[in-house]
Amino acid sequence: MNTKLNIVPFVSVDRMMKLVLHIGVERFLTELAGYIEEDFSRWDLFDKTPRVASHSVDGVIELMPTSDGKLYGFKYVNGHPENTRSGRQTVTAFGVLADVGSGYPMLLTEMTILTALRTAATSAVAAKYLAPKNANCMAIIGNGAQSEFQAIAFKALLGVNKLRLYDIDPAATAKCRANLAGQGFEIVDCRSAQEAVEGAHIITTVTADKKYATILTDNMVGSGVHLNAVGGDCPGKTELHRDILLRSDIFVEFTPQTRIEGEIQQLDGDHPVVELCEVMRGTASGRTDPRQITLFDSVGFAIEDFSALRYVRDQLAATGLYEELDLLADPDEPRDLFGMLLRAAKANAA
Amino acid sequence: MNTKLNIVPFVSVDRMMKLVLHIGVERFLTELAGYIEEDFSRWDLFDKTPRVASHSVDGVIELMPTSDGKLYGFKYVNGHPENTRSGRQTVTAFGVLADVGSGYPMLLTEMTILTALRTAATSAVAAKYLAPKNANCMAIIGNGAQSEFQAIAFKALLGVNKLRLYDIDPAATAKCRANLAGQGFEIVDCRSAQEAVEGAHIITTVTADKKYATILTDNMVGSGVHLNAVGGDCPGKTELHRDILLRSDIFVEFTPQTRIEGEIQQLDGDHPVVELCEVMRGTASGRTDPRQITLFDSVGFAIEDFSALRYVRDQLAATGLYEELDLLADPDEPRDLFGMLLRAAKANAA
Repeated sequence: MNTKLNIVPFVSVDRMMKLVLHIGVERFLTELAGYIEEDFSRWDLFDKTPRVASHSVDGVIELMPTSDGKLYGFKYVNGHPENTRSGRQTVTAFGVLADVGSGYPMLLTEMTILTALRTAATSAVAAKYLAPKNANCMAIIGNGAQSEFQAIAFKALLGVNKLRLYDIDPAATAKCRANLAGQGFEIVDCRSAQEAVEGAHIITTVTADKKYATILTDNMVGSGVHLNAVGGDCPGKTELHRDILLRSDIFVEFTPQTRIEGEIQQLDGDHPVVELCEVMRGTASGRTDPRQITLFDSVGFAIEDFSALRYVRDQLAATGLYEELDLLADPDEPRDLFGMLLRAAKANAA
Repeated sequence: MNTKLNIVPFVSVDRMMKLVLHIGVERFLTELAGYIEEDFSRWDLFDKTPRVASHSVDGVIELMPTSDGKLYGFKYVNGHPENTRSGRQTVTAFGVLADVGSGYPMLLTEMTILTALRTAATSAVAAKYLAPKNANCMAIIGNGAQSEFQAIAFKALLGVNKLRLYDIDPAATAKCRANLAGQGFEIVDCRSAQEAVEGAHIITTVTADKKYATILTDNMVGSGVHLNAVGGDCPGKTELHRDILLRSDIFVEFTPQTRIEGEIQQLDGDHPVVELCEVMRGTASGRTDPRQITLFDSVGFAIEDFSALRYVRDQLAATGLYEELDLLADPDEPRDLFGMLLRAAKANAA
């Protein structure tokens, strides 16, 4: 693959869907989770630069670069809440993986779908270390675009097969249930968040409101539960009542970023949290007590995108599910860029 | 154009060459220079974030974002001096232009060729304000990949028609001369930099050595000359003897960046320089005296790439010289990303 130096493999949205379907969503999520776990375990190798954000009144455009010294990846991602009014997505993304040794891009790929997959895979990886043993019942509060990916990731990695769904919009719940039909879940539609959490071992909150919200109040969260808080992921956007946080052991991806974007923006800046990478490396404990409330305060981090780019890149040779993009000028003579232009003129005239 | 929301127009290397040839190199450079001048004139509107660099032993990968509040652009560019050993380019680049209002990319394009064009156009724009009147003779020291673009930009914008070429490698000079044949230049090959500068009104230095070099010594630069120093463009890489700088009025793109990357890294941090945007807006003077030595200390800035992206984007509708890239997942229902996957499975099975 990629013997022509001008070519960068490109995975379009169509090819990404074919790739996910070819591999199977469950297997894709399981294997991707393996890449994420591997990269979290070698956390210290990574260049963890903050994301570079360009804010405007309508939203934000961010570049999220990272590197492990051998590979370099970045994601372009926007967030524009008003986009749905014009039939556009609130969030779209694409990304690039490059070789640090030559600086040459090795992959350009859509990342809207891929981000949904990596977010779910990361939640499930965290839950492997944090959820109570034999947890098989999960409440999903918020049944939008991320909900099905969460359900399938938890089924693939933890064996979750009972879902309790709730959304303020019953149509979203109906959509989620329909999309998950025939995939081995026992699904209960609920009329409130309170009803959804009854008997759940894991509570996933993945709502979209861009404000301080209280999807869960303190009385709703019993001992022994694992909370997977996915929706609160930017400054000013949270989902859980502060009192829940105070009763929980809190696990994060990258502390400096989560302090700004996660549920813990409600807490003092020195409130103790544990980084997931420590748990995976064995330098910190995950769940130690069946009565403990564990909270994964998910915001999404560049290394997860890096893992996803790496995983997709590794699937290309076997599946052929990419196009060849003529992205890099590669003159026969490196110092003769202008001559390349002249030769193109001759070729066009011939 | 671009009515399908999933599509981003893509200009490949092949399409970029066709676009440049279709428009004509001289006209392309002239019109691009107009866009650069326009953007420099509204300099204060831009979000001027520093480039985000990821350094390694082999080189650097950089992201250069900027925005004027309506459009957002970034360039990915690498610099790997050892690449030529494996038949690769030292520098390759690509870029994206996006709509700030929606965060949606509007253009993905190769930028290796485009960067060569914008660098030359910027030099010529600067020279319009700084070179002596009726300058028609230019020395080009360093006859590599950038040299022909500089020559044609100075012909297009200033009427330069006499070239005095010198390179330590005579093969590079022969290549440059051959590439410029039939384009209306009177060309003299020179055996030394000293010989090249004789009688030249403009001296362009565009050598590639990545070290402190002295391409020009003080005695070689007579009064009234305009220096266009293009090659010194990163920390530790300069081309001019320090004494020349002390005799020159120095003009830069963005002072904080040029202090680190330009010829003026040899001077004290408070040595007076003038930003080009001030000259274009009329808040500072360009050349005021025929005996003055002016120096454009070119390092390349994100706003020039932004202008280039804007210019290319504006050529697409009329020329059709782009491909449609299926880059953005755009489900019929914004909250139903997973359903889009299921529908793709059905479509594939059908």
